[in-house]
Order: sequence, then C-alpha cells, then structure tokens
Amino acid sequence: MFQQPIPTLCRDGDRLLVLDQTLLPFRTERAALSTLDDVAAAIRDMQVRGAPLIGATAAFGVALALERQGADDRSLQHALTVLGATRPTAVNLHWALARMDTALRPLRPAQRLAAAWAEAEAIRLDDAQTCDAIGRHGLDILRALAATRTRPLRIMTHCNAGWLATCGAGTALAPIYAAQAAGLAVEVFVSETRPRNQGLLTAWELRAAGVAHVLIADNAAGLLLMRGEVDLVITGADRIAANGDTANKVGTYLKALAAQAAGVPFYIAAPHSTLDFSCPDGAAIPIEDRGADEVCRLRGVAPSPGTKDDEGEIATVRLAPMDTRVANPAFDVTPAALIRGIITERGVVAAGELAALYPERRQ
Amino acid sequence: MFQQPIPTLCRDGDRLLVLDQTLLPFRTERAALSTLDDVAAAIRDMQVRGAPLIGATAAFGVALALERQGADDRSLQHALTVLGATRPTAVNLHWALARMDTALRPLRPAQRLAAAWAEAEAIRLDDAQTCDAIGRHGLDILRALAATRTRPLRIMTHCNAGWLATCGAGTALAPIYAAQAAGLAVEVFVSETRPRNQGLLTAWELRAAGVAHVLIADNAAGLLLMRGEVDLVITGADRIAANGDTANKVGTYLKALAAQAAGVPFYIAAPHSTLDFSCPDGAAIPIEDRGADEVCRLRGVAPSPGTKDDEGEIATVRLAPMDTRVANPAFDVTPAALIRGIITERGVVAAGELAALYPERRQ
Repeated sequence: MFQQPIPTLCRDGDRLLVLDQTLLPFRTERAALSTLDDVAAAIRDMQVRGAPLIGATAAFGVALALERQGADDRSLQHALTVLGATRPTAVNLHWALARMDTALRPLRPAQRLAAAWAEAEAIRLDDAQTCDAIGRHGLDILRALAATRTRPLRIMTHCNAGWLATCGAGTALAPIYAAQAAGLAVEVFVSETRPRNQGLLTAWELRAAGVAHVLIADNAAGLLLMRGEVDLVITGADRIAANGDTANKVGTYLKALAAQAAGVPFYIAAPHSTLDFSCPDGAAIPIEDRGADEVCRLRGVAPSPGTKDDEGEIATVRLAPMDTRVANPAFDVTPAALIRGIITERGVVAAGELAALYPERRQ
Repeated sequence: MFQQPIPTLCRDGDRLLVLDQTLLPFRTERAALSTLDDVAAAIRDMQVRGAPLIGATAAFGVALALERQGADDRSLQHALTVLGATRPTAVNLHWALARMDTALRPLRPAQRLAAAWAEAEAIRLDDAQTCDAIGRHGLDILRALAATRTRPLRIMTHCNAGWLATCGAGTALAPIYAAQAAGLAVEVFVSETRPRNQGLLTAWELRAAGVAHVLIADNAAGLLLMRGEVDLVITGADRIAANGDTANKVGTYLKALAAQAAGVPFYIAAPHSTLDFSCPDGAAIPIEDRGADEVCRLRGVAPSPGTKDDEGEIATVRLAPMDTRVANPAFDVTPAALIRGIITERGVVAAGELAALYPERRQ
C-alpha cells in the first residue's frame, strides 16, 4: 500500500491531527482539531481539502463530536448536521456521514463511541485501498498509451488529486505514482488552479516524489493540448452524477473541452464515494460559490530584506480592491460525453456505464 | 473621439511618456523613455502592452532612435531591428515598423527625423480613430443582442483590450464604452488572465469608467458560459492569419471553446494592423514563450502594519520555488471556426472573409 509521507489525517488520542493545507506548499505543519467546530472549520476553510479526504475527516469529526458531547441521538444528529453543512459539492462528505449514520444509529449510545472511531478508521482504510486500486487500473491506461510513444508519457492534471486529497495515494495521481513505482517514465503538466492554487500542492507532491513535472498557468492548457504536447488528461472528481456528468474543481471543464478538440483522452479518477446516483445529471449537482477574497488576494512567500528568495514569511497580497464584485464558483461540470473513461477501484468504465459497475448503488 | 483618461503614450520633447502598466492597477505612474533601448525594454518588459499600443510605441521608438542616433540608413535599420526583436507574436509591432520603414527609407536622412515623428503621430491617430470605428460597429452587435434580453447584456472578455492596450478606446472594450455612452446597460465578466493578471487592468479601467463588472478566475469561464450567464464573448487579438485563425492572450482559446459549446457568440475585435495575410493559418503564427518568473511570482499590494488593507507597498510574493520547471506560452490560437465574427474598423465580418474586407492587404 502507498505510504503517505505525512499522514493527511490521523487520530491522536481524543483529537485529530491534519496536515494544514492552507500553509502548503510554503510550510509543512499539522493542525490539531479538538472539537466538532474545529473539524467543521477545517473543512470549510480548506485546511483539509480533496473530496475523499473531506469525507474521511468528517467521519472522524463525528467520532470526535461523540467523544466530546456524548453519543445520544441528539449529539449524533447535531454532528451530522454541522459537518454536512460545511461544503456542498463534494458528495464524499455526505457519503461518509451517511455511512457513519448507518453504522451508529442502530446502536445504543453506550456502544456508539467505540464504533464511531472504528468506522472512521474503516473509512480511512477503505479510501487508502481504493486509491491503490485506482492506481493499478490507471496504470493499465498509462502503459497502453506509453507503448505508442517513444518519449515519456505526458499527462496533464488539474487541481490536486494526489495523496494530499485522500487518505492514500490520491486519485488522479495514483496512476502516476504507480507508473513511477513500475519504472514507466511520465511527465506531468500541473495547472496552477486559480484561485486557490492547489496545483502548487500537486507540484509540491510531485517534487517530493521525484516525478518530472511542468507548472503552467491554467490558461496555457488549451495551447499545449492543441499542439499535441499532452498525451492524456486525468483529474479527480467531487461528484459524479448517474449519467456520468462530473463536478470537479473549476477549470476542469475547460481542459475537457480542449482535450476533446485535440483528440486527447480525458479521464476522471474517482472512488465509489464520489458517485451520486441520486443526481440524474450534472445540472442537479450543487456548485459551491466561495468568497471574493479568494480571487482578490493571494498568499505567497515574501522574501525578507537580507534573506534569500526562498526564505521569508508567508504573506498575503491584495490583487484587486476588496469591494470588487467577484463570481467565484469553486467547481464546474464536465459532461459525460467529454470523458473517455472513469477510473474507479473496480476498473475503468465509460462515464455512462457507471451504474453497471455499481449495481448496488443504483437508485 | 474617445478621450483616454491618461494618455497611454505621448511625445514629451525628445522623449516618450508611457503609462507604466507593470505598476497598474496599484499605482498610476508614467515612465519616461529616452533611448531606443528604453523603448525596447518597455515593450519587452510590458511597461507598454496590448498589440495596438505596442505598434504605436515602436513607431515612436523609431523616431526617438533617429533623434538620438542620427537618421542615416544604418541608424534606421538598427532601430527597426532592435524594436522588431522585442516581442514575436503581436504583428502590430511589425506592421508599425514596416510602415515607418516605408515612409522613411525613400527620404534623405535630413528629412527623416521630422517625418518619423509625424508618421508615429499619424499611427497613433490612426489607432485612436480605428478604435472608435470598432466601437461603433461592435455597438451594433450589442444593440441587436440587447434587444432580445430584458436585463443588462452580459459580455465576457479576456486579458485587457481596453484603452490601456491602444492609443484610443481599446478594441474589445471599445463597443462596451460605446454602449455606455449610448445608454445601453452592459455588465462585463473580467477574467483575471494569469499569469500577468491583465484582467485586473480591465477591472481598473471599467471601475474608473463606471461600467458594471464582475471579476472571475480564468477557470470560472466554462461554468458561467455553460450556465447561460454570458450573452457574448469579445476579446482583442495579437495576430489574425489569412484564414481567420487568431492569436490572442493565452486562455482565449479555452473561452472560445466554451462559448461554442454553450452556443454563445464569440467575437474578436481588432484593427487592420493586427491582420497578417502572410500567415496562412494559426499554425504559422509564432507564439512567444515568456519566463518562469511570471508563473512563479506575483505582484500585489501588501498591507503594512497599522495601515488599511488598501494601503501598503507593492510587493512580490513567490508562489512556487524558482527552480520549478514552467511552460509559459503567452498566447494561444483560436481557430476561425470558433469565431462568430471579427469586429474591425471597416465593419464586422466572418473570420474566413477578412480578405474580402481588406483586398489591398491580400498577399
């Protein structure tokens, strides 16, 4: 199984430790979450992010809430409600909370606390194993494409769907890590992913893992695809509707359009927890709007006088006046027709054929 | 004629004054250019930017060079060579230099200096008049679309093709300013335009002019178009090939793809100086690659201790390690098939029909 260099999420007695992703790639620090409100804030403010990791963190948040506030029905329901309201788009959150509810609700309160921690751990382990399986199935795709190339396979991704976004190897990056482990040469185009620059998390991951990569502005994706510089595109997902339409980080749809125009295959890598067969299609997926602040300000490292460029404090600079009107949808929807296949832990399937792969999830 | 709030470019005796666009939108300062090298550096480093303005600035740069270094053939040729090498994609630069060459070369050196300043002024006036005409023709399109809507017309643009990019009203923004002057309600989606954030120049222009606008991350364009929140897209251009394929700021192509998918008309607004009938198609247009620095660092305003958010010094923060591999193409190519029409000073024409509108320019 893939070993995370630093666990994205773990229990530490009666609190949770999470890798604080708002400080990455500049600082590697863990944050301790001690209360339900801490966990809700960590999800909302994106200290933890990535659809699978949000789900697992919410599961641990339920356990933490029962630990703190007792395990009666009211406490359980409160935890589910508070955590369920943190972020609307990634369905893994609701999947994990529903799984916790199903496991805990039938139990007597006295049995719930131990069961809650055990179920959260099971969700985490499930996610790690799922990532490994996605990596294996994705590797088959990479191998087949690489066989037609005489140079390293060039893969474009968007946002961060690596180990940072999960409890394991990641989703979109799992096949890339599997390729590296198998000695298959790959090179990754990493798009910055404004406004929150999660592409820099991907670059940070790949650098640490020794995977060749090239950082690009989001805007550059179209030209690179048009020029034939990209062999395939793989992204993660936040919610996949019954017909295969897929919500993922805003900007994914533009890459899918450009990939189609260039005849380059576009894949989604996602675990079963990202499926939402209760959404008939993409139009039914709620899209989170986030604050203007994310667009108007940006965090980076400011070199201090007398220090080298790479030293210095984390600083926030303002790009536009704070009263500028901003539209900041955090996700967009890629129609199933643009998706060559969805890489799941059960194998690779056409977006429209997901229901056949998950008959037990059919609505 | 549209009056620029601050001239983007003017002669001040034996030097040029340009509005320094590397400091905008944070500071409004003019830079004095005294030598040929100053002018070349100002174009290369994007103190002046925008295809039409680059052309006019280069024309004045020729006059300045003759003023400083004499007006013999060698000096003229040197100026043309140095300025012609500054930036490869925007053809307005080469158009303006060719026009200066044609005007000056047949003259005796003694006559050239006065003629050079006069020709540069003529190019500037031509550009301003051209912008006004583009505004009038574009306004016809906006009026026709607005007649089918009961709310303000929503126009998306990319980069900055406003007055800052020209010697007049702008190209893509000229119809918007014309609409405002005519009392037609419009609202503009302004995309940030990473990596250099020229969208913030557009927001700054529109704010000063009192035009309603909404800032978005480049990535958000696809969702907004898919949702029907945009009525049309207008951008400028850096070079239009004989078949109508158009190079413009990187990211334009992605908007054109998303506009087509949504059935939203996509227009290019450009003057005759942007046409290059010697390029048969987009594949022949040279695309400038710029430095990694533009992607790895970003400039903003850093609030100082004790000051309000809007005060503070201009600061540069580092987003990614400086040794990160970066691909930073500054332009991309939008195929003619995605362009509903090109708005020129002679009227609006299908991208493939440009040659009929400019018979004298045919190769």
